[in-house]
Amino acid sequence: MTEAVEKLTKKSEDTSRWYLQLVRMAKLADYGPVRGTFAIRPYGYAIWERIQADLDARFKATGHQNAYFPLLIPESYLKKEAEIVEAFDPELAWVTVGGREELEERLAVRPTSESIICEFYSNWVHSYRDLPLLINQWCNVMRWEKVTRPFLRTAEFLWQEGHTVHATAEGSREEALRMQGVYRDCFYEVLAMPVLTGAKSASERFPGALETFTCEGLMGDGRALQAATSHDLGQNFSRAFDITFLDEEQNRVYAHQTSWGFSTRVIGGLILVHGDDRGLRLPPKLAPTEAVIVPIWRGQNKGEVRREAEALYSELKAANLRMEIDLDEEHSPGWKFNEHELRGVPVRVELGPKDIEKGQAVLVRRDTGEKEFVGRKALSERLRALLSEIQTNMLRQATEFRDQNTRYAWSYDEFKELIESKRGFVVAPWDGTKETEQRIKDDTKATIRLLPFDQQEGNDLVSGKPGQTAVFARAY
Amino acid sequence: MTEAVEKLTKKSEDTSRWYLQLVRMAKLADYGPVRGTFAIRPYGYAIWERIQADLDARFKATGHQNAYFPLLIPESYLKKEAEIVEAFDPELAWVTVGGREELEERLAVRPTSESIICEFYSNWVHSYRDLPLLINQWCNVMRWEKVTRPFLRTAEFLWQEGHTVHATAEGSREEALRMQGVYRDCFYEVLAMPVLTGAKSASERFPGALETFTCEGLMGDGRALQAATSHDLGQNFSRAFDITFLDEEQNRVYAHQTSWGFSTRVIGGLILVHGDDRGLRLPPKLAPTEAVIVPIWRGQNKGEVRREAEALYSELKAANLRMEIDLDEEHSPGWKFNEHELRGVPVRVELGPKDIEKGQAVLVRRDTGEKEFVGRKALSERLRALLSEIQTNMLRQATEFRDQNTRYAWSYDEFKELIESKRGFVVAPWDGTKETEQRIKDDTKATIRLLPFDQQEGNDLVSGKPGQTAVFARAY
Repeated sequence: MTEAVEKLTKKSEDTSRWYLQLVRMAKLADYGPVRGTFAIRPYGYAIWERIQADLDARFKATGHQNAYFPLLIPESYLKKEAEIVEAFDPELAWVTVGGREELEERLAVRPTSESIICEFYSNWVHSYRDLPLLINQWCNVMRWEKVTRPFLRTAEFLWQEGHTVHATAEGSREEALRMQGVYRDCFYEVLAMPVLTGAKSASERFPGALETFTCEGLMGDGRALQAATSHDLGQNFSRAFDITFLDEEQNRVYAHQTSWGFSTRVIGGLILVHGDDRGLRLPPKLAPTEAVIVPIWRGQNKGEVRREAEALYSELKAANLRMEIDLDEEHSPGWKFNEHELRGVPVRVELGPKDIEKGQAVLVRRDTGEKEFVGRKALSERLRALLSEIQTNMLRQATEFRDQNTRYAWSYDEFKELIESKRGFVVAPWDGTKETEQRIKDDTKATIRLLPFDQQEGNDLVSGKPGQTAVFARAY
Repeated sequence: MTEAVEKLTKKSEDTSRWYLQLVRMAKLADYGPVRGTFAIRPYGYAIWERIQADLDARFKATGHQNAYFPLLIPESYLKKEAEIVEAFDPELAWVTVGGREELEERLAVRPTSESIICEFYSNWVHSYRDLPLLINQWCNVMRWEKVTRPFLRTAEFLWQEGHTVHATAEGSREEALRMQGVYRDCFYEVLAMPVLTGAKSASERFPGALETFTCEGLMGDGRALQAATSHDLGQNFSRAFDITFLDEEQNRVYAHQTSWGFSTRVIGGLILVHGDDRGLRLPPKLAPTEAVIVPIWRGQNKGEVRREAEALYSELKAANLRMEIDLDEEHSPGWKFNEHELRGVPVRVELGPKDIEKGQAVLVRRDTGEKEFVGRKALSERLRALLSEIQTNMLRQATEFRDQNTRYAWSYDEFKELIESKRGFVVAPWDGTKETEQRIKDDTKATIRLLPFDQQEGNDLVSGKPGQTAVFARAY
């Protein structure tokens, strides 16, 4: 066992400690000087780049364009929408001095950009012909959080925020649902995260939204993570920021809007969903390195093994596989195996003198640990198929875990017992009132994660009143 | 003539007014609420995305990885490098309040990230085996400028900043030169901007740099624009931030560093270099739309022309050309021609009833205004070739302009006369002293833009002392 792997706490023993160690040891992120700020290191950032590329292509395929809006938002703008200011005011960072002068009005570092983007939109939208306006922004945002954890909750994070304008209420509702669908597809197909989708209860909605749609992931420790949300803002912001247009009958009417966001927080989710006691496990579609070649040499055959390994590396790279080769001479193969397992590389390719003799290589899967011997000629084809199998298997594993940890509660005692001892998602009828929602939260720390789109009827476990099913969990 | 084009000032008459109008009319950017801040609108941002994609591929091909570092820099970090603080202090925006509390130490919104990145690097670099460390960051930065202009000088802008660490002085110098070369290739091959390259004089160097290498563009009004710079920082920052490593002989030594940046300012350069009285002209490689189809219909044939135009659009899109089709029914073809010329679309494809009859379409070049008739079957191939010709021609035109506006001065009177009446680049020997550099600046507002790599000897026009050639110009 290597020093590195020896030190990694077991996930099952202390997920929180395991998580922080893994982030540092796999060089995903590092703490910054200001509380709650982090650098995303190249290995972590490469994962983000792959998520970005996938989402960006999906946004463009659904007709969206990117743009960039200012970082700093005047205080008066934030105050135009009462719920926004109430929700974000405690978490804002304020610029009060610029160019050695005290500013007349202080400026918030954007916590989200509705209020500044709406100001631009009120100038850009004039006629029904300008709609729908479908814009997305990739940027940094800042929320002065008290308790932080790399990726999951940080003072500054990276995200995309979509902001769209529509002529009708149906238009904005459809868009909010469409983008939830785009997120869901990315979670399933790329992140191998089988999120549950539904709507938020009123108290968990985005401030000012008519309706918030959410993708909720289940982490390895049984806690939920709100992974991406999409909001139908209705006319709340267009009224506050005066976004009106002339409709086809020449009436001036308020526009309907949406916003939707997906952030680097999801990298935290990825670690918590797929990681294990040996470290990270990356779904192949996101892995910066799909496979790493580890040559296994001894003194006398080193030259030959090295040459063969390098030839194989060139060959697989030329076949458009994202490859790495570990030619380090300081460490043993065993040390390297552990290191690349820690980093979550989906496949290890071992090549020793015997393999060369037999014209083969050994493929070792990170997800199951299974080994197979493959002839050199079939290697690139087999490797590509294997990566696809691993992607599918990781989604299956995560889906099984989610399903095994999604339980129905038939009484409030059972509900409390499940949340306390099993965690996971607990499904129960809810009478739709804030009172029972709050009571359950106070009693169990569980919140309503989502209201499924296909709700069933039943009696609320607390009030006994008729209600519809909600999904509860303790959340990150 | 359309309302839009009628209103555009002639470039030759008032470049500054033309520029501001064009930025607004072509929907490239819009003014933000805080002085000097701007939104980059989708059309402008799409140009930036294409530049980004090209540069990012070049950075990766030269071994660099992306990462992300915190936005906010504690004041004490900035103070560690004396020249940095002196240079940037007047331009900083300060966060003084976070989460409703006055901060103990105020935090600058990054104007550039050397000081915070060096703090991380001092933890990441231990041994010669960790070097070279080749990292780039795409992000926003802020400089509280007094006089601003969209793209060219803005309080907030987008850029990339590379920050690398090397074992030797040769290593950092080679890297700084390599990245200047990467920038130069992107300017020539993609932006069609024939920048001059060389080194900066001591007074124009980046604060704390041993040497600054620059790419200088010549704008349409004869003023120079510093388009991208690359700095050999030597050991100045590693000493200030304690970045040391154990070399192969186990000695602890200070590392050598570089930094290099390329920003959205270049979009301003692109407009000023290539734009003309009719509006923008975009090099095809950067154009969000390579060609726009304008169907030319009258009442009775509208249905057929529209169908044919849409079929052509699908066909050309399927051939991987970035196409647009203008099916607007409100405006005349002439209005549309002007509109797409204003937006700088490289080629217009006209399709009318006669063209359909003859099985052809009309291609009109934005760069020269030339028309040609092309048979439908040859169209996608011809269009692709034409785009390549336009790209080449735009570089040739800009190079001719640059060469016609690069002049040698043989006396100080002639120098002053050239700067005043002709502008452009003026080449003259310089004795290498700050005094003559300052005298020339005071007399003429011209600064040394660069010291060419192939300098020639001669006597300084002011002091008469022996010197070497420098390139002077008035700059943006």
